[in-house]
Amino acid sequence: MFEQIKITRIDLREGRQELLDQVVIEIPFTIILNNHELSTLLCSPDKLKELAIGHLVSESFISSKADLKSVDLNEKTNVIRIETNTPIEKDELDKKRIITSGCGRGQTFYNYQDFTGCKPIISSGTDAFSVGTILKLMAEFQKKSVVFRETGGVHSAALGQGDKIVAFAEDIGRHNAVDKIVGEVILKGEETKDKFLLLSGRVSSEILIKAARLGVPLIVSRSAPTNMAVKLAKELNITLMGFARGQKINVYS
Amino acid sequence: MFEQIKITRIDLREGRQELLDQVVIEIPFTIILNNHELSTLLCSPDKLKELAIGHLVSESFISSKADLKSVDLNEKTNVIRIETNTPIEKDELDKKRIITSGCGRGQTFYNYQDFTGCKPIISSGTDAFSVGTILKLMAEFQKKSVVFRETGGVHSAALGQGDKIVAFAEDIGRHNAVDKIVGEVILKGEETKDKFLLLSGRVSSEILIKAARLGVPLIVSRSAPTNMAVKLAKELNITLMGFARGQKINVYS
Repeated sequence: MFEQIKITRIDLREGRQELLDQVVIEIPFTIILNNHELSTLLCSPDKLKELAIGHLVSESFISSKADLKSVDLNEKTNVIRIETNTPIEKDELDKKRIITSGCGRGQTFYNYQDFTGCKPIISSGTDAFSVGTILKLMAEFQKKSVVFRETGGVHSAALGQGDKIVAFAEDIGRHNAVDKIVGEVILKGEETKDKFLLLSGRVSSEILIKAARLGVPLIVSRSAPTNMAVKLAKELNITLMGFARGQKINVYS
Repeated sequence: MFEQIKITRIDLREGRQELLDQVVIEIPFTIILNNHELSTLLCSPDKLKELAIGHLVSESFISSKADLKSVDLNEKTNVIRIETNTPIEKDELDKKRIITSGCGRGQTFYNYQDFTGCKPIISSGTDAFSVGTILKLMAEFQKKSVVFRETGGVHSAALGQGDKIVAFAEDIGRHNAVDKIVGEVILKGEETKDKFLLLSGRVSSEILIKAARLGVPLIVSRSAPTNMAVKLAKELNITLMGFARGQKINVYS
């Protein structure tokens, strides 16, 4: 469920330290229903059979064990093949297909650079940020979230530039909060090379890809990243920082 | 972004109290792209134009403002109509269609009872749970999450029965953790009327619907629910509790 990776921890009082840290594993998991590729979920590599069955119940394809003819999980490829006793119309399968947002899925999931909009970030010289400023903006970012303070029910995302927060959004969904920032940048037609993304929530591969599309060279979260987000950040030349709290921050890539 | 509702707060030391509390608002928001119903997002009612544009960027339909011919947001119906300068092939639109998991979407979103698998829970007489036991199991539930303690990167879900946790799952996704529990129950062919769902994460309408399909009469979360989850819980006769921490718990329905 998790793996050890090398990270750099920066503490404004105690300096910089290389250490081993645990990050949670994220895998693409493909469900094939009656020989039809139904969906690829991004998930933790645990209880995959249960996840696939639960997903089919949630999507109304099955409602009990009696609906299942066979369930065959390949633990090497993370692909599960499920057959139902009653055929499901192709229309129904197509309608319910879940597409993971992002650049690709399934077999091609690790080849992000081949896909439009996910090219590695090239440093522009204007994209240097001091850890002191980042942590100061993270503290300001947290104070901005009025809705969270009132309800505890939302995530927030923001753009930092220089020593200011220049865009801010909240939403009940982590992904939506980032999409609101992306939309604001597009509508304003702004450059993003000199800006960085601040996040309250966890950084999965989908969030990383949204940030890559946005074109920011740096992502800073108050929470944890997944191992896939760290791999992608390295591949796409994005600096990924997490657990930005108080005087401390972890650098994952 | 949030609304006031009446809740009951139970404190094991101080007793029961009726009070007004803030819950975050969740709405269905429909994006129509080139006269094609693309997706219905469940989101906070704020920066909807930015959200729609950001969503189109994330789904690779557009990459800059120049791709947009018109953007028309109807704030009464929460429907946005977007036209692009270059036509998008119908195949591409169909492939990328996002279906919200759950019983329905768009116009029909509030009529859950009409949909298979989301009938109101009927009390069986075996589904009475004491707040003391619920809070005790919530404390145990939290201790069980080894991965969270190691990485801070996952959500967990569990089933409580009597004074025991009888199923437990973790995942990087809130929805996946619940689906793993649903799958486990289906594979074991178990009754759920005498069990309740424990959650680490926020309760949105999608989570509520998964629980309704599972057939549990009670959902307990350590975090906040959305207003739509509260409405649905009332409609489906499910008891929804949140902020279960230490000796206190909020009862939303």
